[in-house]
Amino acid sequence: MANSEFEQRRQTVASGLAEHKLDGLLVSWGPNLRYLSGFTGSNALLLVTPGKSILFTDPRYTIQAGQESTCQVRIAKGPLVIDVVAAIAKSGLKRVGYEPALTTCDAYQSLESKLPMKATLVAVKGWIEELRTVKSPAEIARIRRSVETNSKAFEQAVARVRPGMKEQDLAADLEYRMRRLGAEKPSFETIVAGGVRSALPHAQPTAARFRTGELIVVDMGALQAGYCSDMTRMLYLGAPTAKVKRTYKAVLEAQLAGIDAVRAGVRTAAVDAAARNVLKGYGLDGAFIHSTGHGLGLEIHEPPRLGKRDKGRLKAGMAITIEPGVYLEGFGGIRIEDTVLVTEKGCEILTPTGKELRVL
Amino acid sequence: MANSEFEQRRQTVASGLAEHKLDGLLVSWGPNLRYLSGFTGSNALLLVTPGKSILFTDPRYTIQAGQESTCQVRIAKGPLVIDVVAAIAKSGLKRVGYEPALTTCDAYQSLESKLPMKATLVAVKGWIEELRTVKSPAEIARIRRSVETNSKAFEQAVARVRPGMKEQDLAADLEYRMRRLGAEKPSFETIVAGGVRSALPHAQPTAARFRTGELIVVDMGALQAGYCSDMTRMLYLGAPTAKVKRTYKAVLEAQLAGIDAVRAGVRTAAVDAAARNVLKGYGLDGAFIHSTGHGLGLEIHEPPRLGKRDKGRLKAGMAITIEPGVYLEGFGGIRIEDTVLVTEKGCEILTPTGKELRVL
Repeated sequence: MANSEFEQRRQTVASGLAEHKLDGLLVSWGPNLRYLSGFTGSNALLLVTPGKSILFTDPRYTIQAGQESTCQVRIAKGPLVIDVVAAIAKSGLKRVGYEPALTTCDAYQSLESKLPMKATLVAVKGWIEELRTVKSPAEIARIRRSVETNSKAFEQAVARVRPGMKEQDLAADLEYRMRRLGAEKPSFETIVAGGVRSALPHAQPTAARFRTGELIVVDMGALQAGYCSDMTRMLYLGAPTAKVKRTYKAVLEAQLAGIDAVRAGVRTAAVDAAARNVLKGYGLDGAFIHSTGHGLGLEIHEPPRLGKRDKGRLKAGMAITIEPGVYLEGFGGIRIEDTVLVTEKGCEILTPTGKELRVL
Repeated sequence: MANSEFEQRRQTVASGLAEHKLDGLLVSWGPNLRYLSGFTGSNALLLVTPGKSILFTDPRYTIQAGQESTCQVRIAKGPLVIDVVAAIAKSGLKRVGYEPALTTCDAYQSLESKLPMKATLVAVKGWIEELRTVKSPAEIARIRRSVETNSKAFEQAVARVRPGMKEQDLAADLEYRMRRLGAEKPSFETIVAGGVRSALPHAQPTAARFRTGELIVVDMGALQAGYCSDMTRMLYLGAPTAKVKRTYKAVLEAQLAGIDAVRAGVRTAAVDAAARNVLKGYGLDGAFIHSTGHGLGLEIHEPPRLGKRDKGRLKAGMAITIEPGVYLEGFGGIRIEDTVLVTEKGCEILTPTGKELRVL
């Protein structure tokens, strides 16, 4: 990402301070901080004011902060909050925004108790997260690369799946291959679950071995150059039963209906309804126990959320998942998921992997 | 972990409620919740009262919660907090503890605004974390396995290090091997950094290739059966220079001095001082820019912290790291780290890997 992109984002925030009735914004949440500064270290605070932005971190990151960020950098010898409060006092800031959804009660109290007399903290909900929902061309290029890495790793590893292989060994292989293809790490804990365990939507891979006549769910994503991808595909060892085929068809139709509904301006809940209604037609809506999708970018779960009760509308440039699934205890679970890019006229499916049930 | 161990822990907390002037404790932090319930899902709250404990989670985890936990399980259809407040009202709880260091301002306000008239939230700082510092025999067995997996993965991968190999490929290989050896994943982002980049204490592996005449730092840990390990070792490609040898010797002496100082009852700051004083003797204390170590268990960083300003004393059964390091810009960094178990008479070094500079 060019330095100018980070500077432009900070400029957007600095220009918006007045509208939010703020003299400054204190950013503590890592992905928001990275979005505005480029800094990737773990212990940092960023203070954005109309005139300048200051990045506070500790001595472990002295070299790294200088390399990654064009902000002014302050290396704190003790708790960062002491230096932040000193900067607030020195600049005479009165209304300083903070992130209540991402700040702990302790951190808030520590900051609040040290503030200069005239300064107050103001809760700012979801401002930076909202900016982050619409991706820039540079961000889309990174998501695209992450998606491609992820799909390549899937193909390489799936070619080696055999009965008798352990869930955790397939997960290890998938993650190894994505790293060899350029990912920093998985964007979340890779899910590999065979047989009835595939009915656990968030199953952790175990030492269980794949058996013929089993569904296998693979839900995986790469994190590459800081950006996430997310994909779910289903494998089957042996000849699928009629119930497996029927259920798979229902989920695939639901997923395609969800994708069909995506377009800038459409309500997120309408995309969920499109997928859910298909499953209703099959009598399977009761087994679809989560929302249809979520935004992704620097984090694997970002706004928007595409659920039954979610408000809000899609915008061009949002990167989202479409991932209906059904979970039947004692039978297994089937989910199909792509990463897609919202456009003015519909969407671009970024995930290149075919959506047929992989019969091995 | 036997179910009885979780029940015993909840019993310890239930028995301690009166002393903390509480009618119940609401646990929201994942590792604390897992420690008390065995549940490993991502979205949950645990309410401990003198009579019973209730685990609240969402429909994705219906099956998993029943399998993993012996608590009463409540599956919430909407936000968990609604069901929690209903349970608080039904049981007539008045003073309910919460975790201020681990609860966001938003979560606090959402809970606080819905509480029954007579109920109030009381900040409880570090109670469960304190219980977690002293490990049970079952926990020590898991840490031991995690440490062994980690060291085996290190040996397997290091045998293949050559000039021209990329940092990120060594990191990928290390992580793949730990998973094949039974780990769920790395306990933190594996650090592999060559040459001057080794001076970044928290370097992320890059596409840079190892060159002859370079220091390489490898800081890695496994997460196995939920428990962490942590180890740092140094490699050198080619014949080490006099400065590398001298600096390595200083850090190794500091690390051994730190280990020598470990014993139940000793102040954590005294362990830090023991390591720091050795480096002072070499004129290198200015380049030792972090603390000497930290506790580990369900999390990679847990209390106690072994730094200059830390209060508190070691107890038998604590699992901690000893990891002094020096960081010289333009030269590189050298750190040596073991996972050790505090005992009444000293400590047991769990990490089996030799501490010589690995000359390749």
